[in-house]
Amino acid sequence: MFFNQLIEILKQGDSGVERYSILSNPKITSAASLENAKETEISFLEKDSYLLNQFEDSSASAVIIPLQESLIQKAIEKNIAWIAVKDPRIAFAEILESINPILLPKEGIHKSAVIEENVELGKNISIGANVCIESGSKIDNHTIIYPGVVIYNNVHIGKNNILHANSVIHPYSKLGDNCVINSNAVVGSEGFGFIPTNKGWRKMPQTGIVVLENNVEVGCGTTIDRPSVGQTLIKAGTKIDNLVQIGHGVHIGKNCAMASQVGIAGGAKIGDGVILAGQVGVANRVTVGSRVIASSKCGIHTDIEDGQTISGFPAIPNKLWLRCAANFKKLPEIAKALRKLKQ
Amino acid sequence: MFFNQLIEILKQGDSGVERYSILSNPKITSAASLENAKETEISFLEKDSYLLNQFEDSSASAVIIPLQESLIQKAIEKNIAWIAVKDPRIAFAEILESINPILLPKEGIHKSAVIEENVELGKNISIGANVCIESGSKIDNHTIIYPGVVIYNNVHIGKNNILHANSVIHPYSKLGDNCVINSNAVVGSEGFGFIPTNKGWRKMPQTGIVVLENNVEVGCGTTIDRPSVGQTLIKAGTKIDNLVQIGHGVHIGKNCAMASQVGIAGGAKIGDGVILAGQVGVANRVTVGSRVIASSKCGIHTDIEDGQTISGFPAIPNKLWLRCAANFKKLPEIAKALRKLKQ
Amino acid sequence: MFFNQLIEILKQGDSGVERYSILSNPKITSAASLENAKETEISFLEKDSYLLNQFEDSSASAVIIPLQESLIQKAIEKNIAWIAVKDPRIAFAEILESINPILLPKEGIHKSAVIEENVELGKNISIGANVCIESGSKIDNHTIIYPGVVIYNNVHIGKNNILHANSVIHPYSKLGDNCVINSNAVVGSEGFGFIPTNKGWRKMPQTGIVVLENNVEVGCGTTIDRPSVGQTLIKAGTKIDNLVQIGHGVHIGKNCAMASQVGIAGGAKIGDGVILAGQVGVANRVTVGSRVIASSKCGIHTDIEDGQTISGFPAIPNKLWLRCAANFKKLPEIAKALRKLKQ
Repeated sequence: MFFNQLIEILKQGDSGVERYSILSNPKITSAASLENAKETEISFLEKDSYLLNQFEDSSASAVIIPLQESLIQKAIEKNIAWIAVKDPRIAFAEILESINPILLPKEGIHKSAVIEENVELGKNISIGANVCIESGSKIDNHTIIYPGVVIYNNVHIGKNNILHANSVIHPYSKLGDNCVINSNAVVGSEGFGFIPTNKGWRKMPQTGIVVLENNVEVGCGTTIDRPSVGQTLIKAGTKIDNLVQIGHGVHIGKNCAMASQVGIAGGAKIGDGVILAGQVGVANRVTVGSRVIASSKCGIHTDIEDGQTISGFPAIPNKLWLRCAANFKKLPEIAKALRKLKQ
Repeated sequence: MFFNQLIEILKQGDSGVERYSILSNPKITSAASLENAKETEISFLEKDSYLLNQFEDSSASAVIIPLQESLIQKAIEKNIAWIAVKDPRIAFAEILESINPILLPKEGIHKSAVIEENVELGKNISIGANVCIESGSKIDNHTIIYPGVVIYNNVHIGKNNILHANSVIHPYSKLGDNCVINSNAVVGSEGFGFIPTNKGWRKMPQTGIVVLENNVEVGCGTTIDRPSVGQTLIKAGTKIDNLVQIGHGVHIGKNCAMASQVGIAGGAKIGDGVILAGQVGVANRVTVGSRVIASSKCGIHTDIEDGQTISGFPAIPNKLWLRCAANFKKLPEIAKALRKLKQ
Repeated sequence: MFFNQLIEILKQGDSGVERYSILSNPKITSAASLENAKETEISFLEKDSYLLNQFEDSSASAVIIPLQESLIQKAIEKNIAWIAVKDPRIAFAEILESINPILLPKEGIHKSAVIEENVELGKNISIGANVCIESGSKIDNHTIIYPGVVIYNNVHIGKNNILHANSVIHPYSKLGDNCVINSNAVVGSEGFGFIPTNKGWRKMPQTGIVVLENNVEVGCGTTIDRPSVGQTLIKAGTKIDNLVQIGHGVHIGKNCAMASQVGIAGGAKIGDGVILAGQVGVANRVTVGSRVIASSKCGIHTDIEDGQTISGFPAIPNKLWLRCAANFKKLPEIAKALRKLKQ
């Protein structure tokens, strides 16, 4: 593809094209990060990026930049094609989709797939090898199911979903449209509910269901449990990374992002637009307000108000935590100074 | 089902029925939590529950309560059917089982299942699609194996076990009766044993086995490794949540509960009735006494005596930790006060 | 096997045989740890092992020991066969391999396996039941693929690899020789890349690949993501335990060891010979120098120089952390003493 063709693609996209120079209109075969880009490759640079000083040495043939005179100047000096847009990352995403379109599996049902009775299949569906779909389940149009996926009975999978290899969907789960379930994820498994008795733990039946709204993505190996009654609910647009645990009865709002190895215990309520960084834990029944940002390894044991940025364990406001952590390192000095003063 | 029928079921159960009023004997179609219950639904309330103030507004047609005059009075005022029992949660569990019986798969071996030679199968077994059972393995009566499960050679699975989809059982593992292995769990995998040499890591063969006694449950994605020699042992009645790591040679006592994302390193010994909350870590070869309770994210690096409640990293008694954590938040003030005093 | 035959095996191995006494040349049927060993079993003892005081009571018929006069004397007193070597663990590993050789699956392709067009298979390969290999992939000689494994399109798996049950390898991943992928691990899955927009999260296409060099091992349930462009790279000899998350674009050096539940966020660079203990977290784009050792639950947020031993969150030098943690426990006392002084 030539650079002028990419410009046309970007003009139809969402990145906000502002200015550009196609120069000799280089052929673009691939995309790469600034430090790795070679000739015929396109790269991108964000405002105030940590890669700024890689720009000068880059061998890229073209670059996507924010509208910033100094960067445009540099591109001109380097004599490479450039395009300035409002959001360079979105432009880069659009170009990756054009240059490296995903190879989708063929439509149709592989002959080794096991589809039980009373399964309702939409149009233009792809069902891979050794998939098993149990009775009463329904798969809507344009959904892709990769090999080895197991869908228990009475599940409803919406349109345009992608279920990657060996993922498992348990009975009565409901997935909206445009969801992605990554490899080996488990949706709708039995919540961890046991009652202490003097004969040991007695299981509380988990008869509720898991509901994923539209555009939810679930990472590899992530587990989302169903509750004893009611729903575990993940609202539209929320993205969940790998190896995350979502306990039974948890409600997560819209457009949240949960990084890898986050654990959310049973009954917790998470607002909209919440970001939990890696290995964060949320305790049972805690309420986390909308737009909360919790930094990695944070342990949330009490309700958090909307808009807070929190850190540490137990979680406290991030700015306070930074000062506390700085003083933690000085604890031996503090103790020593105190001993001296006492004398 | 009508309320008087549920009463009869509870009388035969373990919840300890004390008093009840069937009123107009409502029809009960389903169960729900107090705040979500609608007409024709039954709910429950525990002693000192956080849902107490939801009781008044609940639309439930019937409620299970502890024997407490004030609650009975409230039920009478609301004019709904009620039953007072010693343990409302157990009553609720029994009613869920009656109202929402689990749909079990049909007996028999699916034609796509691969059963190698010398596999011994008991009676009334269900083996799902694309299951693979390797030679020398033995499955006892009434066990259910869902689609995609892989059982390596020489495994012994006891009676009444449930193995959920795509779980994997490695060679020579032994499972007792009434165990549940949830989806994508791995039992008996190779322990992480490597010896440092000047040519890099050299594998220590892991020739031991994993033994699960009766009534053990293993969560989705949980991994239980076998040791180089001897056993990794989980004793009867222990329940393990999702995404837990049990290292090689670990011994866990009876009736323990391990919450999600707990990690127990090689050779650790855990007593009976131990409760580890989410994301707790236990170091190599540490001994944790019986009835220890470790709160979430706790890091256990040294032996812990029976009956302790511990928190923090490194783990200290919970009460001490609470006071330390409260002071941690004041570290900037403490440092400031100290600087002033020094002047 | 008799003890003198084991001696011959060890002489050909890497443990560094020094002295031995075969006594009555006992028959050795099995191997066990010192405290569990019974007659006809061989065990081993390392220098300064915590098992030293188990030696006297052990019923083992033979023992591998380091060259230490006191231990040789004890073996003579116990009247058991012994061999003194430079590295007893390596000797034990070699003996385990001789006594308990792993049962490898038969060569050949199981009739239920689905091999798409344009797949290139080497010699002496074993492909188990219900395996699926998509088009354009290539598997080299002597590789073993257990049941239920899914290999997407255009993957290259080198020689002598072992892929355990239900693991998944995503498109274009490259595995070197002698790698082990344990059950339910996922290699090459889509990195967690989303761009915030006012319509919610927009996916950044993940068009890069995952490369594992020779002798890499990946634990059960571990997930290794591919980046938007470029590679996620694990260099030769690195061993990764269960339930580890390796984010997109991470580079890990040679001969590292990553314990269970470690999480490495996108773009981090890890040097050679690094050891990360259980539940350690590494933040985005951080650089961790070679030979760094991070103790369990450590949170690494800033670049770490070569050779450091670090602990805590945020990570600080281990020795400093130990003193800080000791003072953390005294915070209530410190606060009290300070209050007194102020008066």
